[in-house]
Amino acid sequence: MKRPFISLWCIAFVAIFLPIAHADDKDVIDYRQHIMNTLGEQAAALGEILSTVVPDDNAVAHINAIALTASTALKAFEPKVPGGQAKPTVWSNWPDFSKRMNELAQRTAEAAKVAKEKGKDAALSNILDQLTCKSCHDVYRQEKKDSDQ
Amino acid sequence: MKRPFISLWCIAFVAIFLPIAHADDKDVIDYRQHIMNTLGEQAAALGEILSTVVPDDNAVAHINAIALTASTALKAFEPKVPGGQAKPTVWSNWPDFSKRMNELAQRTAEAAKVAKEKGKDAALSNILDQLTCKSCHDVYRQEKKDSDQ
Repeated sequence: MKRPFISLWCIAFVAIFLPIAHADDKDVIDYRQHIMNTLGEQAAALGEILSTVVPDDNAVAHINAIALTASTALKAFEPKVPGGQAKPTVWSNWPDFSKRMNELAQRTAEAAKVAKEKGKDAALSNILDQLTCKSCHDVYRQEKKDSDQ
Repeated sequence: MKRPFISLWCIAFVAIFLPIAHADDKDVIDYRQHIMNTLGEQAAALGEILSTVVPDDNAVAHINAIALTASTALKAFEPKVPGGQAKPTVWSNWPDFSKRMNELAQRTAEAAKVAKEKGKDAALSNILDQLTCKSCHDVYRQEKKDSDQ
């Protein structure tokens, strides 16, 4: 006779806590998207400088911002919350994903160091080799859906 | 009798150089939007930390990224190219606009200094006072149009 009572508790539990869990998931996804969008925006700004369509006054700042943001990215993917543009392989291939993300952070930090010590021209000369965005996106990022807008 | 000849030259000139001028304008607008979008993404990430929905591990990095990006923003608005979300008042009120943008850079640099010297809790305690985004957007930013997507 207790089964209906337990079931009601289960339903109440799900009704109360599931929306909270969903809100948390959205926060986690939003957070990592803010970080990855920052990398995208700064890489695009740097791309405009590299293609000489805008002046290069801010080049070092962009490289520093990319290095800084790359250093924050892995932490944002640590919660195993699939969704947004992240493919589930981010977590099923975590050793490879985290290795690539750490390499991005290290390489861009090195570029920022070169910019500081040798100037922007030296840093810009091989920055494209340090920005491994596409090779990683090809494996771990899915196309944006309308619901991600 | 030379008028038609001159007119043809004028048309040819416009046909050849106008698309280039437009492309340049788009580059200028895109560039400043990359910078302002970066500020928006990093402020949103910081907002999630402030509302405690994500951990604060990256708080100092976000403050540094905002300070760094704020320091690049004014340069991106120097070319007088209305368009995107920038209202024409950016340039007609340039002394006020540039003063506000410089203040944002100074205030966020100060927050980054506090974070470095006194830690993230001290920096986070009054970061909202330093981020004057809305008061400036209310005056100088127009709503996003579909063509800006």
